[in-house]
Amino acid sequence: MSNIPPPVTPPRRILMGPGPSDISPRVLAALGAPTVGHLDPYFLRIMDETQTMLRQAFRTENKLTLAVSGTGSSGMEACVVNLIEPGDRMLVCINGVFGKRMADVAGRAQAEVTTIERPFGEVFTLHEIADAVKSAQPKVVGIVHAETSTGARQPLEEISQIIHDAGALLLVDCVTSLGGIPVEIDAWGIDAAYSGTQKCLSCPPGLAPVTFSPRALEIIQNRKSKIASWYLDMQMVSNYWSDQSRAYHHTAPINMNYALHESLRIVLEEGLEARHARHRANHLMLRAGLEALGVEFAVAEEHRLPMLNAVKIPEGVDDKGVRSQLLREFGIEIGGGLGPMAGKTWRIGLMGETSARRNVLLFLAALEACLKSQGADVTPGAGVAAANGV
Amino acid sequence: MSNIPPPVTPPRRILMGPGPSDISPRVLAALGAPTVGHLDPYFLRIMDETQTMLRQAFRTENKLTLAVSGTGSSGMEACVVNLIEPGDRMLVCINGVFGKRMADVAGRAQAEVTTIERPFGEVFTLHEIADAVKSAQPKVVGIVHAETSTGARQPLEEISQIIHDAGALLLVDCVTSLGGIPVEIDAWGIDAAYSGTQKCLSCPPGLAPVTFSPRALEIIQNRKSKIASWYLDMQMVSNYWSDQSRAYHHTAPINMNYALHESLRIVLEEGLEARHARHRANHLMLRAGLEALGVEFAVAEEHRLPMLNAVKIPEGVDDKGVRSQLLREFGIEIGGGLGPMAGKTWRIGLMGETSARRNVLLFLAALEACLKSQGADVTPGAGVAAANGV
Repeated sequence: MSNIPPPVTPPRRILMGPGPSDISPRVLAALGAPTVGHLDPYFLRIMDETQTMLRQAFRTENKLTLAVSGTGSSGMEACVVNLIEPGDRMLVCINGVFGKRMADVAGRAQAEVTTIERPFGEVFTLHEIADAVKSAQPKVVGIVHAETSTGARQPLEEISQIIHDAGALLLVDCVTSLGGIPVEIDAWGIDAAYSGTQKCLSCPPGLAPVTFSPRALEIIQNRKSKIASWYLDMQMVSNYWSDQSRAYHHTAPINMNYALHESLRIVLEEGLEARHARHRANHLMLRAGLEALGVEFAVAEEHRLPMLNAVKIPEGVDDKGVRSQLLREFGIEIGGGLGPMAGKTWRIGLMGETSARRNVLLFLAALEACLKSQGADVTPGAGVAAANGV
Repeated sequence: MSNIPPPVTPPRRILMGPGPSDISPRVLAALGAPTVGHLDPYFLRIMDETQTMLRQAFRTENKLTLAVSGTGSSGMEACVVNLIEPGDRMLVCINGVFGKRMADVAGRAQAEVTTIERPFGEVFTLHEIADAVKSAQPKVVGIVHAETSTGARQPLEEISQIIHDAGALLLVDCVTSLGGIPVEIDAWGIDAAYSGTQKCLSCPPGLAPVTFSPRALEIIQNRKSKIASWYLDMQMVSNYWSDQSRAYHHTAPINMNYALHESLRIVLEEGLEARHARHRANHLMLRAGLEALGVEFAVAEEHRLPMLNAVKIPEGVDDKGVRSQLLREFGIEIGGGLGPMAGKTWRIGLMGETSARRNVLLFLAALEACLKSQGADVTPGAGVAAANGV
């Protein structure tokens, strides 16, 4: 037995990266509750309640709303492979890593993929999308609401009209937005959306909430070809989640669903509007503090995500040095840049439970210490003072 | 807030169905440990240790051994889509629901699928497999080691030779076998295998251990086409699990990996041989008790799985009546039949933690009460007496 590793005893972190975010002890307790069977009447009730709460979080009446048994990227794949048949045209809007990923997924699903691109950190105008839809004539348009790789928020309020007028479906990545900024599936005419549990819902990673409009559901039900993925086949998965047949498909991740249930209870107890306002307020506080420390945002003000603050690493400051000092000395995790932003930006998450005044203050104080270690010219106490002045 | 459902408070069950099995409090505690980031040095260590322990459980030196971020069926899909390119020939041996599922998955991956079939509850002879390999000339042969739907054990010791001689790869479903009966990946020449966490490893459902031989890995690395599933792309996933690049792919289900780590520690503490012997002993005890109650097995003795006992529902006894009485009055879950066995068999699981003398005795006593409620002719105390006599 000498070669058996010691038990899991994770260090206490403050998760201020791009997700996972901090998890409430209530959610961890639900996660560790005794497992029951996936066809146990008790678990079926938990599934029903989870569906109802997911619809509230997504602000939708969509019947086909459930949690896919994988992480957020499996939700992306689920949406794409259910809507796309080989040879279907799909337009993907790329302004970050996750738009690129969606185009990759669509290509593997044998879509004829057209892409439009904006530099990392920027967003698309209505006009650009309209032009692309007109020329590509796609069946599905995929776009990312909150680009986790760049910290940019894509306005979505008005784009469904032009997409629907062209007879296409609107597929939206809501991984980082859900629970942190308004996501209005029905009011905005979104046909399919996926999210992850580990961002603003503050549940551990492992499930992907998805929702499909009646129009999308009809497309799925009238496919000519089988869905490429058996595991993500929404026709079969939804039979298990529906209140009628409960046909066994795969064994649901029971305990992860417990945790999602509890995290959605917390979201709804707070209320979506209050939750969005909290994310906004703590973002503004962080912004004031960062600017006072001489740290600039990488995204234009009007497109910044409150839950994911992408900032430029100050000149002469070592990316990894600061991140590892934050982790080692303060137990604070922040994210580095992805793709072309690697080494150039930090991604500071204020998602869900993490979005708290005390985390903003501690982070600013700790960052000041790290910047000082790097020899940066920082006014002592300036970050905290500015944040407290908001 | 009045429409927010109450918190999760699951009933206490004894999980004697086809999985999930009972979960040790140690594993539930690990599951509920504080979440850290998916690139946290601490989590990378947990991944390394988990890989090492998975190799021990699978009895393999395979480098590409890891836990897929989905349930057992995602492991099946991962193995198939990584090995198969469109137009590749795959032979699938079907003698239950999970063989059928593998053929379905292979078809969706655009394999040219050939199947051979045996009635549910029976297994294939070496001769039958050799003939089919000879005529189908497949790239991959898929077979189920322990058919969860029927309770039958497929002998595997000798088949890799004929499959390798024909230039094919051997893919094995070890979902229900791993941790309960010997699974010898290297000694038996298995090229790819997948399992689930919620059977004889007694971890909640949500991850799928997989392993690929160097030969399978070479096939994957030399593919001409992209792997159909981005989420399950082992080239990319293994870069994250490897000890070198740690390239971000998707956010791993952190807490589920904690739980798997702890469940593997328990498996190795007990030792594989001792664990197999325990499963065998409790199966024999259950068998004696069931036979004394007049309940017959649905599978020939030499092919019975010790961890999943498929038995014929006695004449005149109501399937759902007994199962719901067991659940309601005793908190015991057993499984009904699947596919053509629905309504005809029960599946009594003695997997992992559930495989315990006390569960066998309680189940026999409770079943006697249920059979009596059904008016069956049962000798009082006979089941328990026979089990205690083993």
